[in-house]
Amino acid sequence: MGRNLARNFARHGVAVAVHNRSAGRTRALVEEFGHEGVFVPAESPEEFVAALERPRRLIIMVQAGAATDAVVEEFAPLLEPGDMIVDGGNAHFADTRRREAALRARGIHFVGTGISGGEEGALHGPSIMVGGSEESYSLLGPLFEAISARVDGEPCAAHIGTDGAGHFVKMVHNGIEYADMQLIAEAYDLLRQVAGYTPAEIAGVFRRWNEGRLGSYLIEITAEVLAHIDPATGAPFVDIVADAAGQKGTGRWTVQTALDLASPVTAVAQATFARAASGQSELRAAYRGLPGGTTPQLSRTEAERFTSQVEQALYASKVVAYDQGWTMIQDAAAEYGWKIDLGSVARIWRGGCIIRASFLDRIRAAYAADQDLVSLLGEMEFAMEITDAQVPWRETVASAARRGIPVPAISAALAHYDTLRADRLPAALLQGQRDYFGAHTYRRTDRPGTFHTHWAAAGRPETSE
Amino acid sequence: MGRNLARNFARHGVAVAVHNRSAGRTRALVEEFGHEGVFVPAESPEEFVAALERPRRLIIMVQAGAATDAVVEEFAPLLEPGDMIVDGGNAHFADTRRREAALRARGIHFVGTGISGGEEGALHGPSIMVGGSEESYSLLGPLFEAISARVDGEPCAAHIGTDGAGHFVKMVHNGIEYADMQLIAEAYDLLRQVAGYTPAEIAGVFRRWNEGRLGSYLIEITAEVLAHIDPATGAPFVDIVADAAGQKGTGRWTVQTALDLASPVTAVAQATFARAASGQSELRAAYRGLPGGTTPQLSRTEAERFTSQVEQALYASKVVAYDQGWTMIQDAAAEYGWKIDLGSVARIWRGGCIIRASFLDRIRAAYAADQDLVSLLGEMEFAMEITDAQVPWRETVASAARRGIPVPAISAALAHYDTLRADRLPAALLQGQRDYFGAHTYRRTDRPGTFHTHWAAAGRPETSE
Repeated sequence: MGRNLARNFARHGVAVAVHNRSAGRTRALVEEFGHEGVFVPAESPEEFVAALERPRRLIIMVQAGAATDAVVEEFAPLLEPGDMIVDGGNAHFADTRRREAALRARGIHFVGTGISGGEEGALHGPSIMVGGSEESYSLLGPLFEAISARVDGEPCAAHIGTDGAGHFVKMVHNGIEYADMQLIAEAYDLLRQVAGYTPAEIAGVFRRWNEGRLGSYLIEITAEVLAHIDPATGAPFVDIVADAAGQKGTGRWTVQTALDLASPVTAVAQATFARAASGQSELRAAYRGLPGGTTPQLSRTEAERFTSQVEQALYASKVVAYDQGWTMIQDAAAEYGWKIDLGSVARIWRGGCIIRASFLDRIRAAYAADQDLVSLLGEMEFAMEITDAQVPWRETVASAARRGIPVPAISAALAHYDTLRADRLPAALLQGQRDYFGAHTYRRTDRPGTFHTHWAAAGRPETSE
Repeated sequence: MGRNLARNFARHGVAVAVHNRSAGRTRALVEEFGHEGVFVPAESPEEFVAALERPRRLIIMVQAGAATDAVVEEFAPLLEPGDMIVDGGNAHFADTRRREAALRARGIHFVGTGISGGEEGALHGPSIMVGGSEESYSLLGPLFEAISARVDGEPCAAHIGTDGAGHFVKMVHNGIEYADMQLIAEAYDLLRQVAGYTPAEIAGVFRRWNEGRLGSYLIEITAEVLAHIDPATGAPFVDIVADAAGQKGTGRWTVQTALDLASPVTAVAQATFARAASGQSELRAAYRGLPGGTTPQLSRTEAERFTSQVEQALYASKVVAYDQGWTMIQDAAAEYGWKIDLGSVARIWRGGCIIRASFLDRIRAAYAADQDLVSLLGEMEFAMEITDAQVPWRETVASAARRGIPVPAISAALAHYDTLRADRLPAALLQGQRDYFGAHTYRRTDRPGTFHTHWAAAGRPETSE
C-alpha cells in the first residue's frame, strides 16, 4: 500500500524519496515504476531524511502497534522542529493521541491519517482522513487533496481534527462498513429464504437497488458476488463459500470505543457479533435442529411486494446505522476537544472508500445546511423517508421474527429508533432497581437533585444526597 | 464493604486483624462491633502484617486500579513466600492477571476474588468467586465457604480458576445482570404500553411470575419498585424517576472483553447500549416526534393472553442471555487456560448475588449431568421450554416492532437464537464481499484451504493461497 501511495504521488508530479527496510524493495519500485515520476531511492534512514525538503514530510506505512513505535523512534531523532511524521497505517486513535503528544513535546508534528480504499485506492485515489495539527495540514493538505479520489470536482481528503481525529474517523468508517455489510447480508437472507429467490435473481434486485437511493459500492459488489458462479462446481458462488465471517479488528475497536463514549452504535455491535457468532462452530452445532418459525411460500406478486418492503427496511436501517456513526463522532469530538465538520466527513467518504455511496452527498448537504444538526433524522428529507418506511420496516422485522430469519442489525436499528423517539423509557425502572439493590440513587422528573429511597423501611421517605 | 466482610468473618469465629489507612476507622469498627468477635486492630502496615498467622492471608478492599497497585506495593515487601494477598475489589481481570504474575515471581499468591452482594451481602453472606492458585484456595476456601451465602446447605463460594478467573466470572455475572435487568424492563414496557396495565397491576404480574420459573431476586425487587408509590406526589414511583440509566462500567467491560474473545454476548451489549441511549438527551429530543407504530387497545382477555406471551418471551430471552454468558466463560477458559467447572458457577450464583434465581439450580444440574455441555439449550428441559416458547417469543418481537415499543435485548436474544440454529448464514456473502474489496480470501464448503477469486478478471479461476 505504501508503494502504491508513493506511485500516486509521483504520478501527480510530486518527487518522492523512498525508503524500505529492505533496499531491494526500493530498487524494485524504481525499476518497475520509475517512468511514472520522480523517485529518489534512499538506502539508509539518514540518506532518506537528507533527501527531504524542509520542513520534512515523512509518510510511514507500517503495521499498527509496536512496529509503528519502532519506526517513529528510528526517525524522530533525525528530524528537526517543524518536521512532520504522517502515520498512514490503521493505528488505534488512542495510540495516535499518545504519539502525537510525545512528538509535539519534541517539536515534531505527528499526523495520524486514515487512508481508505485498500491497495487499489492508494494508487488511484483513496479517501484520506487527516488528523494532527492545523499547521501541518496547511503543508500536507494540498498533497493529499491532489492524490485523493474526487467527486463532483471536490477532493476526498480533509483535515478532520487534531491529534487522533483522523484515525478515529477512519475507525468509525470501518465500523459503519461492518454495519452496512451486515444489513445487506440480512436483506439478502430475507430475499433468499422468504421471497424464495435464487442468488442470480437477488443479484438482479441489488442491481436495481443500486440505481436508486441505496446506490453504493457495497450494493454494486454484492450484486457481482451474488451473480458469480463458482467455476469448479457450477453452483452459485455464495453457496460454496464457508459461512464463517472473518474480521480484522476495526469493527471491534469501534464498538469498544463507543462503549467508553456511551455512544450507542448498536448496528455495528450486532454486525461485529454476527461475524463472531458465525465462527462459533461448536455452538452452532449445538443449536442446529432447534425449532424455528414458519415460512409459508410467497406467490410471485407477494415476493415482489416483500422485496420492496425489504428495500425500505434496509434503507431505513442504513440511515439509522449511519446516524449512529455520526453520533459517535460527535460524542468523541466533545470528549477529545475536536472541532469536526460533520459534513466534510460525508463529503470525503463519497469516493475512494468502501462505503462510498450517492446517499453520502445528502448527508453532506444536510450538515452544510445546518451545522448544528444533532441527528440526520432532524433533516426533513431523511425524516420523510423514515416516515414512509414505517410500515414496511416494522413488517420486515415482524416477518423475520415469525419466520426465524436472523436480522440482528435490522432489528437493532429499529429498536434504536424506537428507543430514541420514546417519550418515556423503562430506564426509569432500571434506576429504581439499581437504587433498590445498590443504593445507586436516582434523579427525579419533577425536581433537581439526587435521591435515594430507603427500600427496606416501608414508608420512610426518600433522602436527597 | 471491607468492614462488613471483617464483621462476617468475626461472626463466624475467625479472628480478624484490621488495618485502615485512617486509624480512626479501625477504632470505630472495634468500638461499635467488637462484641461480634475477635478483632485485632493494627495501626501500621508492619503491625498488621505481624498480627497475621502464617502463611498470611491479607484481604484488601480498595478501589480498583491505581489504588490497588499502591496497596499491593505497600504490603508485598512485608510478606514472605507462601503468603497470600486477596483482592476482594472489582478489579478488571486483566489487571488481576498482571498482578498475579508479578507477585508469583516473588513467591506470593495474589488471589483476585469477585465478591457479589454489595454491603449487605458482605455482612450476611455474599457469593464469592475466587481466582488465584489451587494451593491458595486450600487455605482460603474454608474461610470463604464459611462466610458466603448458603443454598440447600451448599456454600456460594468456589475456586473458579487460576489468576484472573475469579474477577472474570464476577465481570460476566455483572454483564448478565445488565442483560437480565434490561429484559425485565422491556417486559414491563410491553405490559405497560401494549397491555395497558398500571405499574401496580404490573407489580402483581411480576409477583406471580416470581412464584414460577422466573423466580429471582431481580423479579422480586422489580415488583416492589413497581408497587412503590412516591410519597411526595402520590404517583407511581417509576413515573417520577428520570428515565436515564446510570452504569458503573462492568457491563461495558463484559462487552469489550467479549469482543476480544469473539464471544457474541448480544443481550449484554444491547442492555449496555440501551442505558447509554437513555442518557443521550439531545439525541432523544431530536428523535422525539418521529412516527412510530400503531397500538390498538387490548381487551382484558387479550391483555391476559399477551401477558403470558411476554412471560414466555422474557423466559426464552433470559435462557439465551445466560447461555451467552456461559459461552463467554467457556471462550475465556480456552483463551486463558482456565479449567472452570461451569456448573459450580451456577451453584455459587444461586445465593448472595444480584442475579440469584431458582433457575440457576437447573443450570447447575445441567452441567452436573453433562460436563461437556456446549450450550444450555443442549439440555433437554431447556430445549423443550424454548420449543414451547417459539410462537409467543416470536409474536412478542413482532408486536413490539409493529407497535413501536423498543425491545433491543429481547429481539437480540431471538436473533442470536436464529443465528446459531441456522443451517446457512449470510456470513458467506460477507466473505464474498470481503474477498472482493479487500482480497481477504475465503474458505469453501467443499474442500480445505484458503481461496481468492480474481474479481476484476471475469472467468479467471480462483487461486488457493
